Amino acid sequence: MRMRKKRHLTERLADCTELIVPIEYGDKRFDASFGDEFLLDLKEIFGNDNPVEMEIGSGKGGFICEAAKRRPDINFLAVEKSSNVLVTACENVFKEGIQNIRFIKLTAEYLQRYIPERSVEKIYLNFSCPYPKNSYADHRLTSDRFIKIYKVILKENGEIYQKTDDMKLFEFSIEKFSQNGFKFKNISLDLHNSDFEGNIETEYEKKFVEMGKPIYRLEAYI
Amino acid sequence: MRMRKKRHLTERLADCTELIVPIEYGDKRFDASFGDEFLLDLKEIFGNDNPVEMEIGSGKGGFICEAAKRRPDINFLAVEKSSNVLVTACENVFKEGIQNIRFIKLTAEYLQRYIPERSVEKIYLNFSCPYPKNSYADHRLTSDRFIKIYKVILKENGEIYQKTDDMKLFEFSIEKFSQNGFKFKNISLDLHNSDFEGNIETEYEKKFVEMGKPIYRLEAYI
Repeated sequence: MRMRKKRHLTERLADCTELIVPIEYGDKRFDASFGDEFLLDLKEIFGNDNPVEMEIGSGKGGFICEAAKRRPDINFLAVEKSSNVLVTACENVFKEGIQNIRFIKLTAEYLQRYIPERSVEKIYLNFSCPYPKNSYADHRLTSDRFIKIYKVILKENGEIYQKTDDMKLFEFSIEKFSQNGFKFKNISLDLHNSDFEGNIETEYEKKFVEMGKPIYRLEAYI
Repeated sequence: MRMRKKRHLTERLADCTELIVPIEYGDKRFDASFGDEFLLDLKEIFGNDNPVEMEIGSGKGGFICEAAKRRPDINFLAVEKSSNVLVTACENVFKEGIQNIRFIKLTAEYLQRYIPERSVEKIYLNFSCPYPKNSYADHRLTSDRFIKIYKVILKENGEIYQKTDDMKLFEFSIEKFSQNGFKFKNISLDLHNSDFEGNIETEYEKKFVEMGKPIYRLEAYI
């Protein structure tokens, strides 16, 4: 769903600069010949050395804000490409006085340029766009090219937690994670009728659950 | 469901001896100190050197008979512990004149005693008992102890195909296969509403599909 550009977006974003990590755009995607000139210092960004967890596609921030409030000793990095929703999330972080979230305005293919190797404990993929057409399969956030990036930035015992309402995306994700060497635990094919505890519902999730759709969830690890 | 013992079972079984591989029972389960004295010669059993595929828990044989008819160049080994259903399957093989099926009356924990290493191309697990209680988890045919056996008897590029209507068994199976080094392809979380072609419906499957239950299916490979 394409959103209308919000009013005064530029001004609103300007008020959030202390939460949004400034990044420099290079003129090409990350490849092996790329240096480390853009790599971020996560310790400096958060002002401490706490473990870092990352949500890719954080949207309006409902999930990551709740996660950050529940676990103040974790640093949460919200990766979001759309300014329209990112700004809402930032404003919510201010409003709620949350200290342990920072935002990066970025699409996932550039992650490796900015995020140091072996620096992230957990990656959350919540209700990512399913790109149902097969010709768009490599746009899915669990396609090979993205999983390869996650493997580089994840710590050795790092984990990826995925939730979706999209059956085809979930089938695809299980195949792709396994083909890239991941194992699974705590898989649920109907999260809201399972005994899983501590779930943080996202905005999308609430809607899908009300529609009676099952929510799929997995934990993948190397 | 416990079945009533059929009338004249002994006589009916006696009529099927040419289809049922005679095996000797040792007095203990397979372990590392066990020799190869009970290993079967699959080439001799089938009278040819065609590839061997195996169904574990073949029941009344609906699936394996149809598979054997569709692919006469494959040797099918039906593993079934219950004589009551095995005899029905055997009689059906005779009735239909199927040449490429043999039966072994066996529970799966003894497979390694009789089936040579790296001798099976595919293993089918169709609607295996889900053993829903966690305390019975190691009775499930996709628990670690069974997967370890499959890894020994499967050929290097061997595959395991599983179908079930039981969501919890399917979640468990994905976790266990992945934790034992298997990868996945052609996963379906709703087989009968997918574009999978060539499905052979089992007796159980027909019933579950009529009840509107989704059928889960996976292909696991090393």
